[in-house]
Amino acid sequence: MNLIDGVLQANPRAMARVMSLIENQDHQAREILKAVFLSTGRALVIGVTGAPGSGKSTLVDKLAQEFRSQGKTVGIVAVDPTSPFSGGAILADRVRMSTHYNDEGVFIRSMATRGHLGGLSKTASQIVSVLDAAGKEIVLLETVGVGQDEIEVVKVADVSVVVLVPGMGDDVQAFKAGIMEIGDIFVLNKADHPQVERAEKELLAALSMAERSDRWSPLMVRTVATRGEGVQQLIGHIEAFERYRQTALEIVEQRKARVERELMELLKDALFEKATRQKGVWDKIHAASQEIKKRRLDPYTAVDEIVKDLL
Amino acid sequence: MNLIDGVLQANPRAMARVMSLIENQDHQAREILKAVFLSTGRALVIGVTGAPGSGKSTLVDKLAQEFRSQGKTVGIVAVDPTSPFSGGAILADRVRMSTHYNDEGVFIRSMATRGHLGGLSKTASQIVSVLDAAGKEIVLLETVGVGQDEIEVVKVADVSVVVLVPGMGDDVQAFKAGIMEIGDIFVLNKADHPQVERAEKELLAALSMAERSDRWSPLMVRTVATRGEGVQQLIGHIEAFERYRQTALEIVEQRKARVERELMELLKDALFEKATRQKGVWDKIHAASQEIKKRRLDPYTAVDEIVKDLL
Repeated sequence: MNLIDGVLQANPRAMARVMSLIENQDHQAREILKAVFLSTGRALVIGVTGAPGSGKSTLVDKLAQEFRSQGKTVGIVAVDPTSPFSGGAILADRVRMSTHYNDEGVFIRSMATRGHLGGLSKTASQIVSVLDAAGKEIVLLETVGVGQDEIEVVKVADVSVVVLVPGMGDDVQAFKAGIMEIGDIFVLNKADHPQVERAEKELLAALSMAERSDRWSPLMVRTVATRGEGVQQLIGHIEAFERYRQTALEIVEQRKARVERELMELLKDALFEKATRQKGVWDKIHAASQEIKKRRLDPYTAVDEIVKDLL
Repeated sequence: MNLIDGVLQANPRAMARVMSLIENQDHQAREILKAVFLSTGRALVIGVTGAPGSGKSTLVDKLAQEFRSQGKTVGIVAVDPTSPFSGGAILADRVRMSTHYNDEGVFIRSMATRGHLGGLSKTASQIVSVLDAAGKEIVLLETVGVGQDEIEVVKVADVSVVVLVPGMGDDVQAFKAGIMEIGDIFVLNKADHPQVERAEKELLAALSMAERSDRWSPLMVRTVATRGEGVQQLIGHIEAFERYRQTALEIVEQRKARVERELMELLKDALFEKATRQKGVWDKIHAASQEIKKRRLDPYTAVDEIVKDLL
């Protein structure tokens, strides 16, 4: 079976192989993504982000179970070095089906968070496309909420769920500041914690200050993920946002921008690749870098010179 | 005074203004960086990275004091949302000279970790260049060690110092895995912790497994940053690495690759900018994105079509 058919038929080995090609930036990946692209766009991609220790992996686990019990197929992409799902990424066991998911309807993929030459969000987006093309109805994209790169990953999702816990202290205020504007739904997990009332008040205050370009008022839900409490309510919120998103023009526009951003990235790469295939360009780059190292030339002038002859 | 002269004369207001232009990707920034480039390459850039709570900000503080007492001028760039230095970044107080540094010889800049269109490491590298051009002899670049983007920032430094603490638990094993290959010097901070012996053993075991392309054997030092203990020894290690770096061909080659990487990034941006200035290109991009949204066209074919006419 070739890899394109394999992905379209949801063959786990073919999917895993294509995901590895994507992570390694193998030239075959581009051809496969191109071939399956018209079969994508059907999955609901749910981003779940939170600090280490917020219990987001447990929540992803419970969400997957719940969607499965509704008869939906599920893909999980874990982009989090501290996640039990992506533990495999570190241990080089890159495709791990946990015993819990002894179930053909769930495909789990962990991503290493380093070494992504083309950018973490591009790789994540392409891996999500594979799950989408394979017909997974729900894709859960788990990310740790620290760093610009991870926030870019969150933008890949249709719905963004941010997981917070009571009693987090000042250390994670920064995390909150970064993530407030991109969360569509906020989960207060470990809601059996004594400080949950206070945390809820703080969260509501923070949300009231966040500026959003759309008119969506983020929803909040308390959960105790370890016991599955609040998970159905969370799914209700996700469905509510999805209904809003399908009808709201602003959000549709935002999606368009997402497509355009991706197109821009591909265009940049393609231009660079084509330009550097022209004769003598690499020689110019190497010569320029020698001069720059000796501080006889600045890189800006060097680039101007190289580009002048190229377009 | 114009901004170029301002930077070269180490005027704090001019430096701060240029750094803001860089962060906003203002076109003026490019011209200024171009003009001051030949005055760079003299600073010793020391990267200090560690998990939140590892005490790296305190260590950066003590290192700055120690270098100041040696009569050296110091610049600090904090790329860490949890750092007290970059607290200002979140509170929109972007240039904060802490009371501690009521001292013209120290310039502190905090960087927001999000919204860097051109990439966090490029922005960090350009801000370091401003400090370098302004004649700062030592530049301390503080980063939180989570995420690919942050690891890219570490590569901007001449010397990489990784800060670890005893009793970190399994949560940060992932952090260690990501950072082991790029640290030149490892600091065990909070060395008055009872588990320091065990942590040191674990660290040595991890280091013995790390693969390095150069022949440097990473040095280790115990510190108690809050009391300044071990800071002079750390500086001794930094100096030892710097001597090695100046003589070791492998490392010099690595530096060249750094220049080439930067040149590549600039070239990509310049090619894209020039290409999209051509007539009708944006119309094609917008038209293609409409078709992609409707799943009537895939982005890879679209990019091939657009590039075909461009080079």
